[in-house]
Amino acid sequence: MANEKKATVRDIAAKAGVSVATVSYVLNDKKGTKISDATRKKVLQVANLLNYSIPEKYKNLDAKKNAYTIGVMYQLMADTPSRNMEIMTLINLLAERFFRIGFNCQLIPLDSEAGYQKPVQGLDGIIAIDLKEDVFKQMSGQYYIPILCLDMMINDFLFYQIHTDMDSIVAKAKELLGDDFYLVTDRYRNEKYNEYLMSVLPKGKSLLFSDMNKKSFEKLAGKKVLVYGMQLGMIVKQNAKCKDILVISNEENPALYSSEIKSIHHDIEKKANLAMNIMMNAFERKFDVKHEYKVF
Amino acid sequence: MANEKKATVRDIAAKAGVSVATVSYVLNDKKGTKISDATRKKVLQVANLLNYSIPEKYKNLDAKKNAYTIGVMYQLMADTPSRNMEIMTLINLLAERFFRIGFNCQLIPLDSEAGYQKPVQGLDGIIAIDLKEDVFKQMSGQYYIPILCLDMMINDFLFYQIHTDMDSIVAKAKELLGDDFYLVTDRYRNEKYNEYLMSVLPKGKSLLFSDMNKKSFEKLAGKKVLVYGMQLGMIVKQNAKCKDILVISNEENPALYSSEIKSIHHDIEKKANLAMNIMMNAFERKFDVKHEYKVF
Repeated sequence: MANEKKATVRDIAAKAGVSVATVSYVLNDKKGTKISDATRKKVLQVANLLNYSIPEKYKNLDAKKNAYTIGVMYQLMADTPSRNMEIMTLINLLAERFFRIGFNCQLIPLDSEAGYQKPVQGLDGIIAIDLKEDVFKQMSGQYYIPILCLDMMINDFLFYQIHTDMDSIVAKAKELLGDDFYLVTDRYRNEKYNEYLMSVLPKGKSLLFSDMNKKSFEKLAGKKVLVYGMQLGMIVKQNAKCKDILVISNEENPALYSSEIKSIHHDIEKKANLAMNIMMNAFERKFDVKHEYKVF
Repeated sequence: MANEKKATVRDIAAKAGVSVATVSYVLNDKKGTKISDATRKKVLQVANLLNYSIPEKYKNLDAKKNAYTIGVMYQLMADTPSRNMEIMTLINLLAERFFRIGFNCQLIPLDSEAGYQKPVQGLDGIIAIDLKEDVFKQMSGQYYIPILCLDMMINDFLFYQIHTDMDSIVAKAKELLGDDFYLVTDRYRNEKYNEYLMSVLPKGKSLLFSDMNKKSFEKLAGKKVLVYGMQLGMIVKQNAKCKDILVISNEENPALYSSEIKSIHHDIEKKANLAMNIMMNAFERKFDVKHEYKVF
């Protein structure tokens, strides 16, 4: 697959479609020659591609790092497809915001089985999204930089926390569905948050998608159901009636998927905005007195 | 929201629940004291949180960068929900692979309107996912590092290219649906790739979701339809019959959403693997002779 033969000035000239002299002028950064910017770029790109040494000043490689780098740590699981989508959507919202203010946003996908291993170098702050408690503890002990917990609960004042306000969502759902309904949701990785999620409805009324089988779905026939995420909503729709389904959705236009299914908007943009503000404050060394935020 | 009062050793002691002497020992890095690792960590974390200077050797902040950094550039659009999900799924697959081999994966979400502006510092390689041609040209002209184009077509031998093999997918679809069917897909940002996508079926048979309205969806009633992405499949299902729908899906278990809808697996993991291999070869300065890869 690879050709490891060392490239010559002649190779570069041939590939770039210019003369050997032109290549030589560009690579030696000779002043006073009439070489267009377009040609110069082409020669430099071809030279770099062929592993030919290019003038230092044209190398982006060694450019000094001058922006804060935020590490976004997360864990995806094979049995939580809807939740995975929400996490990736949230990560994009964070990346957009950090990019706009000139911060680097580095993805750190933690292996769900192996957990966290060694610290990543060069981070200035961390946003941890829905990590298992042991993975989080092992990780957080290795860093002395601001850490923000998103969609997870860690009972430690050291870390900022932002998570969904499920109580308010359930209150809103009661207005729309009445008092008797089921909740179908993907499991969260963070144990405490998952317990909280399971506690918002009476025992036996909250169902985790990963624990459900054909039979438990069939039991939803004729029942009212609050569903977390449009993907799960489409699955529940195979058994429950559309008019009995209420979806908690972060999508711009959930009606696209079904005009009959009602939805409650879950504002994950608000989470991303909060996360950005908290991180900026942390870097400006403003100590934020409020450490927990609930977002509806 | 923020309390900017400068913290004292006493504040740190109070917040960490230890004595002032302990804080002093830790912050002065005094040898020969019996302070547990747990206490030391807590003091350092609290001190950093309160903007108190901590010993240099405990700062992750100034750690030397020692890994390659790959910038992943992409553009999401409001009117391509299904495609956005595929892009984010692909980005996660890339991040997982790069993280495993110790590379940093930095997200660079390009604004769909403003396009590309200034170069990001400190990158060693770029993966460009489905960028508009002008955005790509402006961007690529500013870097002399390896650039790989994913899900896009740029007629330039300088850049590696990986994209979906739509011809093979359409051939497979013909086996399952017969010769007469429509294609419903999200628009791609890259113009040349979008043209290719529109050219795989006879004129008028390829429909872009963003151009469709209620009427054009209703026209699909009774027709056979090849749909790109399970989300779009769920939308098309409102008009076409399940047995007439064939979905191109990257999901592990598309049958979850509907056991009646057939699907063709689109292997985006293969794309991510190829992308990683090409980047690793580029850094090892192996000049890859093949520049275009099609993935089914």
